[in-house]
Amino acid sequence: MDGHAPAASRLDAVLARQDADFDAALERLNDLLRIRSISTDPAYKADCLTAAESLAAELKDLGFEARVAPTTGHPMVVAHHDGASADAPHVLFYGHYDVQPVDPIELWEADPFDPEIKTRDDGSKFIRARGAADDKGQLRTFIEACRAWKEETGTLPCKVTIFFEGEEETGSPSLEAWLTEHGEELKADFALVCDTNMWDRTTPAITASLRGMTAGEVIIKAASRDLHSGLYGGAARNPITLLAQILGQLHDDDGRVVLPGFYDGVEDAPAEVIEQWKRLGFSEERFLGDVGLSRPAGEAGRMVLEQIWTRPTAEINGIIGGYTGEGFKTVIPAKASAKVSFRLVAGQDPEKVWTAFEKHVTDRLPEDCEAVFNRRDTGAPALNVDVTNPALQACVDALRDEWETEPALMGSGGSIPIVGDFKRHLGMDTILAGFGLEDDNIHSPNEKYELESFRKGIRSWARILERLAAKG
Amino acid sequence: MDGHAPAASRLDAVLARQDADFDAALERLNDLLRIRSISTDPAYKADCLTAAESLAAELKDLGFEARVAPTTGHPMVVAHHDGASADAPHVLFYGHYDVQPVDPIELWEADPFDPEIKTRDDGSKFIRARGAADDKGQLRTFIEACRAWKEETGTLPCKVTIFFEGEEETGSPSLEAWLTEHGEELKADFALVCDTNMWDRTTPAITASLRGMTAGEVIIKAASRDLHSGLYGGAARNPITLLAQILGQLHDDDGRVVLPGFYDGVEDAPAEVIEQWKRLGFSEERFLGDVGLSRPAGEAGRMVLEQIWTRPTAEINGIIGGYTGEGFKTVIPAKASAKVSFRLVAGQDPEKVWTAFEKHVTDRLPEDCEAVFNRRDTGAPALNVDVTNPALQACVDALRDEWETEPALMGSGGSIPIVGDFKRHLGMDTILAGFGLEDDNIHSPNEKYELESFRKGIRSWARILERLAAKG
Repeated sequence: MDGHAPAASRLDAVLARQDADFDAALERLNDLLRIRSISTDPAYKADCLTAAESLAAELKDLGFEARVAPTTGHPMVVAHHDGASADAPHVLFYGHYDVQPVDPIELWEADPFDPEIKTRDDGSKFIRARGAADDKGQLRTFIEACRAWKEETGTLPCKVTIFFEGEEETGSPSLEAWLTEHGEELKADFALVCDTNMWDRTTPAITASLRGMTAGEVIIKAASRDLHSGLYGGAARNPITLLAQILGQLHDDDGRVVLPGFYDGVEDAPAEVIEQWKRLGFSEERFLGDVGLSRPAGEAGRMVLEQIWTRPTAEINGIIGGYTGEGFKTVIPAKASAKVSFRLVAGQDPEKVWTAFEKHVTDRLPEDCEAVFNRRDTGAPALNVDVTNPALQACVDALRDEWETEPALMGSGGSIPIVGDFKRHLGMDTILAGFGLEDDNIHSPNEKYELESFRKGIRSWARILERLAAKG
Repeated sequence: MDGHAPAASRLDAVLARQDADFDAALERLNDLLRIRSISTDPAYKADCLTAAESLAAELKDLGFEARVAPTTGHPMVVAHHDGASADAPHVLFYGHYDVQPVDPIELWEADPFDPEIKTRDDGSKFIRARGAADDKGQLRTFIEACRAWKEETGTLPCKVTIFFEGEEETGSPSLEAWLTEHGEELKADFALVCDTNMWDRTTPAITASLRGMTAGEVIIKAASRDLHSGLYGGAARNPITLLAQILGQLHDDDGRVVLPGFYDGVEDAPAEVIEQWKRLGFSEERFLGDVGLSRPAGEAGRMVLEQIWTRPTAEINGIIGGYTGEGFKTVIPAKASAKVSFRLVAGQDPEKVWTAFEKHVTDRLPEDCEAVFNRRDTGAPALNVDVTNPALQACVDALRDEWETEPALMGSGGSIPIVGDFKRHLGMDTILAGFGLEDDNIHSPNEKYELESFRKGIRSWARILERLAAKG
């Protein structure tokens, strides 16, 4: 015995304290929801600062060394707590205190900044307010977990850095520069982000992979002006045909992208992950049927969840050339263009993929045609959490304990920019665990957060911190 | 001796009479050019009728049985002359008495309906007026040839039917119905049309082939709504990609169209025609270079003139799908569409080609995608004059005699609707011989016709009639 209570009973005490404190936790959430921290509207600049200051003050009360860090836009909140053990991992927690605008205001049942707890016929409750789910309710699940640990044990089980942003809803314009200058201060063993959803109402989820992307426009130019297809047809190069040929050759008959090296470094999801996905009861028929499709169109022989979470793609997102109005014009146009994007998975380099695409195009160009490329930006690599990572396993175990069901280890076909920023600037992996639901109406009128998400979310983080400390 | 002069001296006498009468012929042309027969503008309806009546009256004076035939729009002029010999072929001559509008009027040097003869520094002369080349000057070359024959010999060497239309510049809205009802009256061994150009200023030309066309739109539909490429990319069918694949497979690596049966019945131009084209001194480099191209893009191993005159094509004239605005949107659209046309040559059936195209598309459709086809119309087959046809040879010989150079036997990559109408309604081939030049400004301000075109055009038709009669 080292004077501490055994881990299990210590955690039980923390959870019990949290439960006893739940009404006060709800009040603290309400206080934050009342602040009109709409980041995109300059009229609410002071409100954003108020939100940041109230969070920093609260974290100070909880024993964090906390401050409001100015940026060229809305400020960051940065806080550090050493925790109980130098052996436990150091975690960075990320959330954002800014919210979406409330338009169309007339569709709200009540003032978006006057939070209200509503009860359904089945007894379930939710809190309605702008930001309830995205992201004030979610970020407070972590703060309340810290609070319960601090109040019960006098400290936190791990070293924790907290980083709250105030510009997430406006594309984080100040983030890049701020991370470049101050990023080292956020460096931890890994990041935890609470800004995602559960698999369903009873199944928690961790998003363990995010696809990256590289994208841009290609313009194929042939003749110096539009030509009449009667006069020139058969002799003049048709850039639409050429573009169709070039882009029509991006995939083979099995739906695989033919760019040389495209799949270099791409690995199949581990068998245990695939097995876990199979157990989720995902209905491919319903997923596709909901949008009028019946067959997975991607790589042959892959489950839909594999196709959208773990496999890279080449998509034509837009194409235009020649006469596209009513009726007909027998024109051979001077040019045709397409917007093309590649969703990337771990192992792929956006730069190499884009370069291979340009080569795919230029290799197929006749000598009197020209291709102009307008690349969108430098692209973003995919992000994968190593599923054998003990930290991830600690989170999974903690969520299983709390929700009494196997958590879903999800991929995400899209991207979450902050995860790439942490990887790029700090070399740090991120574990995404969140308690939102599909029907939370984020970015829409009558946004809400389930009280059960809030309560069990807090308890989940309390357990995760304990599990992480135990693995340290 | 049968009381007639021998053919050669008879023709010489006709030509001499024409030369002596040239100033009067110019006056008659001026009279017609002064009539404001703008078919598209109802304000000039009476002028159109006046033009038709004056032509019918003149043809009556020349011994034709002539009348003004009403239509639902502007009237036709129909005239018949039995000619000297029942053994000679019966020819139908077509021209149109209506003209284009004159806007922008401010760009004309003078009143478009006040014809003026202008002389260049090199002594060459032209007549400036709306319709001088298109088509009043051209149609009068034939009338004046008939006049010279009639006045010199008392008759015409062949049986001649004349058909002048008054709605050519508005797309001939009344023609189809009129031909259906009265077409038989126009039936002859073949038609002569004077509404085309010379090869160049000193080289006459006969247009011996016209490509046909079938065209339409294809819409590929996949999901029931636009999808986000992060969420669905890799599993959902992308209709742009599918369209690119389908249309990108219309041609093989040698530029040939892959539709099964597409080239059935298509024959190479005869060697003598190819040889003749080679002698024309056509510069592929200049033809393509003028529009910024350097390489013939069609079927490998074919001359450009072959490609545009004698070979069928598949062209994508327009394509659109997905996001085509500024910036980027990672969308997988619900549909994508293209406008496609096929230029056809002799031996091809527009119906079969379009059907083969639809099959090409539907054969490549996954089962949950749909293709919608909006065919433009029933299409038009190509028209070829048999180059071994004695009538064509007679025209070639006559033009060679007059212009003292080998006439160009041209193809046309586009189509001239009346030729298809004659073929479809009357089963009649057409020989197109005209004396216009590229720089005649038809449909533009300051339209003109070379006096040399008018004079040698009249002499050419006089010779053609004589040659045709001799071959009868």
